[in-house]
Amino acid sequence: MRIGELSQVTGIPVATIKYYVRERLLPRGVETSDRSMSYDASHIHRLLLIRTLADTTNLTISQIKEVLGAINRFGGSVHQAMAAGLAATHHTPHPTKAPETAVQQAQQTADRLLREHDWEDYAPETYRDSLLAILTAYYTLGYPDTPELFTMIANAAAQLAAGDLDIIDRATASEGELDAEWAVTSLLIGETLMSTLHRIAHTAASSWHQRGG
Amino acid sequence: MRIGELSQVTGIPVATIKYYVRERLLPRGVETSDRSMSYDASHIHRLLLIRTLADTTNLTISQIKEVLGAINRFGGSVHQAMAAGLAATHHTPHPTKAPETAVQQAQQTADRLLREHDWEDYAPETYRDSLLAILTAYYTLGYPDTPELFTMIANAAAQLAAGDLDIIDRATASEGELDAEWAVTSLLIGETLMSTLHRIAHTAASSWHQRGG
Repeated sequence: MRIGELSQVTGIPVATIKYYVRERLLPRGVETSDRSMSYDASHIHRLLLIRTLADTTNLTISQIKEVLGAINRFGGSVHQAMAAGLAATHHTPHPTKAPETAVQQAQQTADRLLREHDWEDYAPETYRDSLLAILTAYYTLGYPDTPELFTMIANAAAQLAAGDLDIIDRATASEGELDAEWAVTSLLIGETLMSTLHRIAHTAASSWHQRGG
Repeated sequence: MRIGELSQVTGIPVATIKYYVRERLLPRGVETSDRSMSYDASHIHRLLLIRTLADTTNLTISQIKEVLGAINRFGGSVHQAMAAGLAATHHTPHPTKAPETAVQQAQQTADRLLREHDWEDYAPETYRDSLLAILTAYYTLGYPDTPELFTMIANAAAQLAAGDLDIIDRATASEGELDAEWAVTSLLIGETLMSTLHRIAHTAASSWHQRGG
């Protein structure tokens, strides 16, 4: 089909489609004899995928490009594709100027969390640095030390990761080779879902608490 | 102190401080007899808070402004301040053009999740719309229905919210009136922490799975 039809089917303006092609998020069409470009079902699906990531997640176009790259590159390995997708969408905090005591408190808490979950030997450097930067920022503000808050968040993260991978394992067992695109996309959509459901859960729990329930 | 000293103490450039004042993130200083502005400890703390939110979270300056507004406005009510802080930082997905079947599947899943957690009467309209938009996007891509994935994410969100509020309750019990700034900021820093720890947990769990552990 021509670009006009592709635009009609997907509801995405021609100019936006051309932009995605230029930015290499969408593969070029095939040149036809009359020198126009021809697109097929794979282009429709790819456009829907770009649109979904752009509309439902908070990702930038360049992050989406990296996610799509990860899906293409590691299509054969669901685990590698997921790792690359998570890395591409990781928000790296800027390290803030901080007093030495805050840095030390942060280091202790980070070490404890990694140790308690057996993550010490697996956490990549960039995630470790982020963990430290986030905790340092917290302690720099002079807030009370809340070990149980951090423990609770780490437990939730561990459960989420284990749950994700269980579901992927079961899907692989029942459907054979798994689709890396599906695994990566559901991981990222899952994070957005988590953020929205957290807000819903918080609103509800807050009402119950205020009623003394 | 003058703006130069404020800049030195916080490590934030004078131009940036002036920008924050102009954008009303930071209150003006007090005009002194020689017509320069004088700043105090409250300005230092506010600057650190702005910096922390700007550096560790993925929030825009206008979102940070709303968060600070929520803290000021609802300083006396920790629950209201938290609700306003979460609302200000909520990422609202654009609704995508979607086939009717995808919308129906999304509606069924959204209803089920809200029902299972007793959230039906509490979820604000905008979060409900987001939930529907995210699920619709997922089903539009033609991925397998994965009820257990969504259930698992909802459970994690519920735990996180309950945990947050338990900690706030206990802090209130032991320290008397609670600081709304602390409650809101730790909620938002907590979300960034969750995102980083999720990536660490995923990396570790993925290694264990691949080893057949």
